[in-house]
Amino acid sequence: MRLRNKPWAEDFINAHPHIVIPNPEDFKGNWNAVFNNDNPLHIEVGTGRGQFITGMAKANPKINYIGIELYDSVIVSALENAIEAGTLPNLKLIKINGEHSARFFQKNDVSRVYLNFSDPWPKDRHAKRRLSHENFLKLYEAFLIDNGEVHFKTDNRELFEFSLVSMSQYGMLLKYVSLDLHVNMPEDNIMTEYEEKFSSKGHPIYRLESQFLTK
Amino acid sequence: MRLRNKPWAEDFINAHPHIVIPNPEDFKGNWNAVFNNDNPLHIEVGTGRGQFITGMAKANPKINYIGIELYDSVIVSALENAIEAGTLPNLKLIKINGEHSARFFQKNDVSRVYLNFSDPWPKDRHAKRRLSHENFLKLYEAFLIDNGEVHFKTDNRELFEFSLVSMSQYGMLLKYVSLDLHVNMPEDNIMTEYEEKFSSKGHPIYRLESQFLTK
Repeated sequence: MRLRNKPWAEDFINAHPHIVIPNPEDFKGNWNAVFNNDNPLHIEVGTGRGQFITGMAKANPKINYIGIELYDSVIVSALENAIEAGTLPNLKLIKINGEHSARFFQKNDVSRVYLNFSDPWPKDRHAKRRLSHENFLKLYEAFLIDNGEVHFKTDNRELFEFSLVSMSQYGMLLKYVSLDLHVNMPEDNIMTEYEEKFSSKGHPIYRLESQFLTK
Repeated sequence: MRLRNKPWAEDFINAHPHIVIPNPEDFKGNWNAVFNNDNPLHIEVGTGRGQFITGMAKANPKINYIGIELYDSVIVSALENAIEAGTLPNLKLIKINGEHSARFFQKNDVSRVYLNFSDPWPKDRHAKRRLSHENFLKLYEAFLIDNGEVHFKTDNRELFEFSLVSMSQYGMLLKYVSLDLHVNMPEDNIMTEYEEKFSSKGHPIYRLESQFLTK
């Protein structure tokens, strides 16, 4: 994603602490306190401009959502999206690096992870940065419930091939695979900004649902 | 595959018992006797016109190959291919139904199964006929060595999606996945007749290598 300098972003984010949680480390093991309910928590790692997570929060009021994004200049767009969508008490954003998720989430905090159009890091020497690399799977497993799920979408063929093998080698179960999502578009599919752009060009969108198995 | 009536097929097959083994049930547990060596045995279930298995046998003289095909009118083309290729002591054909493989192979007889461009059986009610259905995986596992492999190619997206999930659910490990084989064509890829036809039209060819895990 191209990053633009937005000097106003930090102030705008700070002015909306009910959406962009300023102290996420305080809620590790206690995210229910943020949402005031016991609904399951789904998080999106790399939420980008937030169209997906906002759409999901709107469509599924009985599920809590947290979008994770590292950059001020990006999360601010997700914040604008969330504000435009009106009051969504089940949607929060946090500005952290996914690599440091262990500071903010612990076992059983989360029941599903969404990874949408993550950076493919095409060079072999950058494989460890891919969000479906085993090091990241280990992080997700550490804060997911037993049999927690990862739902993954991308237009990048190589990243999808890598992810299928990486998840299988990790011992995860593939529950669902689509190699051209938009041919039989599921009714409940919420498109990300990237997804709209790429699928409108006729590129196939790949999608999988996988599950950690109790060891 | 379209079947043509070939009234001469049966006689032609019977005239080449050194290639189309007439009594495969006699070699269950003892296929080494057919090849006069201890090399690993790879089989192709649904060998069709035999271009793949003949090419593999030529390229890999230290591996034994058996092509399985049910129909006289098809296996006769594989036989013709094998004859044209010259003497290939490591290539045999057997005319059996893959469903009955337990009559001809037992545990440790085979180290790899190839499935190439199998019938996709697109209707849900025919799912059990797909060669990657769990019932078939169970058959393969019963005659493969420990950690034996299945190598699978198809141009059929739905069949590939089904196979990824079916193998994962069976507890198999995905070792390799390609969603467009001919973009980075492996040097040792031997094309089937179908593969030549479909890839020349620009359709992607899907390929996977999976492995049974010791339980």
